[in-house]
Amino acid sequence: MTSPVRLAVDCMGGDHGLPVTLAACLEFLQRDLNASLLLVGREPDIRASVLFARLQASTRVEIVHAPELVEMSDPPAVALRSKRQSSMRLAFEQVSLGHAHGAVSAGNTGALMAISRNVLKTIEGIDRPAIATFIPNRSGSSTLMLDLGANVDCSAEHLAQFGLMGSALAMAMGVEQPRVGLLNVGEEVIKGNELVKQAAEQLRQMPIHFIGNVEGNDVFKGVADVVVCDGFVGNVALKTSEGVAQMLGAFLKEEFRRSLFSRLAALIASPVLRAFVRRVDHRRYNGAVLLGLRGVVVKSHGSADAYGFRHALDRAAEAARHRLVERITESLAARSGLVNA
Amino acid sequence: MTSPVRLAVDCMGGDHGLPVTLAACLEFLQRDLNASLLLVGREPDIRASVLFARLQASTRVEIVHAPELVEMSDPPAVALRSKRQSSMRLAFEQVSLGHAHGAVSAGNTGALMAISRNVLKTIEGIDRPAIATFIPNRSGSSTLMLDLGANVDCSAEHLAQFGLMGSALAMAMGVEQPRVGLLNVGEEVIKGNELVKQAAEQLRQMPIHFIGNVEGNDVFKGVADVVVCDGFVGNVALKTSEGVAQMLGAFLKEEFRRSLFSRLAALIASPVLRAFVRRVDHRRYNGAVLLGLRGVVVKSHGSADAYGFRHALDRAAEAARHRLVERITESLAARSGLVNA
Repeated sequence: MTSPVRLAVDCMGGDHGLPVTLAACLEFLQRDLNASLLLVGREPDIRASVLFARLQASTRVEIVHAPELVEMSDPPAVALRSKRQSSMRLAFEQVSLGHAHGAVSAGNTGALMAISRNVLKTIEGIDRPAIATFIPNRSGSSTLMLDLGANVDCSAEHLAQFGLMGSALAMAMGVEQPRVGLLNVGEEVIKGNELVKQAAEQLRQMPIHFIGNVEGNDVFKGVADVVVCDGFVGNVALKTSEGVAQMLGAFLKEEFRRSLFSRLAALIASPVLRAFVRRVDHRRYNGAVLLGLRGVVVKSHGSADAYGFRHALDRAAEAARHRLVERITESLAARSGLVNA
Repeated sequence: MTSPVRLAVDCMGGDHGLPVTLAACLEFLQRDLNASLLLVGREPDIRASVLFARLQASTRVEIVHAPELVEMSDPPAVALRSKRQSSMRLAFEQVSLGHAHGAVSAGNTGALMAISRNVLKTIEGIDRPAIATFIPNRSGSSTLMLDLGANVDCSAEHLAQFGLMGSALAMAMGVEQPRVGLLNVGEEVIKGNELVKQAAEQLRQMPIHFIGNVEGNDVFKGVADVVVCDGFVGNVALKTSEGVAQMLGAFLKEEFRRSLFSRLAALIASPVLRAFVRRVDHRRYNGAVLLGLRGVVVKSHGSADAYGFRHALDRAAEAARHRLVERITESLAARSGLVNA
């Protein structure tokens, strides 16, 4: 039996808004019987949705009215300063007020980072929040990668903090002693740039299971549970991966559509191809966790559909239930214990 | 009719040595009737090869005896200082002496970089050589990416030089006005790190067609002919891509082997799957070009087979025939013309 959890959902964010977020909320509540939701957004619009009646019937939803909306194109500073009643901001406030255990939004990343930090503040001892994402690996589990773009000019200390926070998140997600790797290059000439060399030194001092350097191709092998890198490298690596996967998918489709014979082959192979597509479905990995804040914040892809957004809700519920913030705080305490000892 | 070209081949390098390099040389000469080769390596071993008789029959090979061999595990400094008679070094010397138009080696990257630079020297105006690789893209052509690991701590000026050299190589390979992009991150929060911002400024001053920032997923879309990044980011991006492709390939295989039905489907779909595999065959992209040296140097993957190594030979022949080094020199002259004007 899972413990009760309550999440605040920014129902207006993302490319699709209410039709997607409310459908995801419904699916989430049907699956997670100990969860309840605060639906943050324009109350008249939420009530007008055909899905709301079914949500209300579950008796596990409340509406928090938010008259404003952060647009996908809003610059972070504008969203932060002039939209004090946005659904995104009010969702985070539910967490800071103690009304919710975590918040989920598919709104624009820049605004989300700025507002969540402004509302929730960072944990003492953490300089900068990081964005962490789970990616599939060959061993059948998933690898947590961070940072994915929150910080493009990092110090070695920042990377070490990422390692500590990533380890805490992996533990919260059920990995017993997460293996933490540092993303580096592997040629003989070069044993990494200066930043990475220093970061390795600092990661060795952390109360985590640091396994040393990993290379780009290791990320998908499952040799590490957590892979640490700066936000620039992480963002490029993640997007490059998406690009390759899309290209290969497009090529495979083209080959199966090339002739009458190949179309027939596709028809026969369709159960196999569908199983393959299900297995690599990126929607199951939707839900990046903002680490280092005094509250659980999960960011969904802006373009996520209801299935994807529901996975972001699952992620937030899991992080909140497994005391993510407390785990990070405890790790930091253990670290300063090590330093003082 | 192509112009005559002569290449020096390090026949001993790579994981497999002579059986692979000589087989590739034979295939290369059979396809390129205006090419000749200097086979650099241990003469007795070369003569003892069953392939040598056929190579000799072509009358377009000569042997350059090299008693020493750079091992895959040799540190660059050792290979550089204590192996003055290595097949790798003597291959580059054939180029610096004017006996060959270019050199190809599958030997270890660190040694190859150190020795090629020592023997051939950099072009005036180029601070650091870069490693450039062609990768497939969705538009059916290929994208040139550099640097791939020669330089892990780059300045903005270095990145700008990479743009200029990459553009020259793309032109040598037949692209008329290469679109040069700068690899960057795309989130709203962050418009790239300091290095990239400065590099963009400098690239705008270059006599090239600079199209601005590109993101990781753009690399495989074909929106740019040349993508510039520092060696750390490039190495991680390339290896991450390889990792994803391997994982997806493994998953696809597993799904097609899962049951009796899926095995049957695989049998029926096999011509389509083979066409797909041919299309994404990385061996056709083997052959990274070292840019910025006073001579054409192409590095093959250490693990390349004869088919892959032959592509590296093709690449070197093409670069030499299309006056790669002269093109870079001319671009640099055009640049200083711009600066002085």
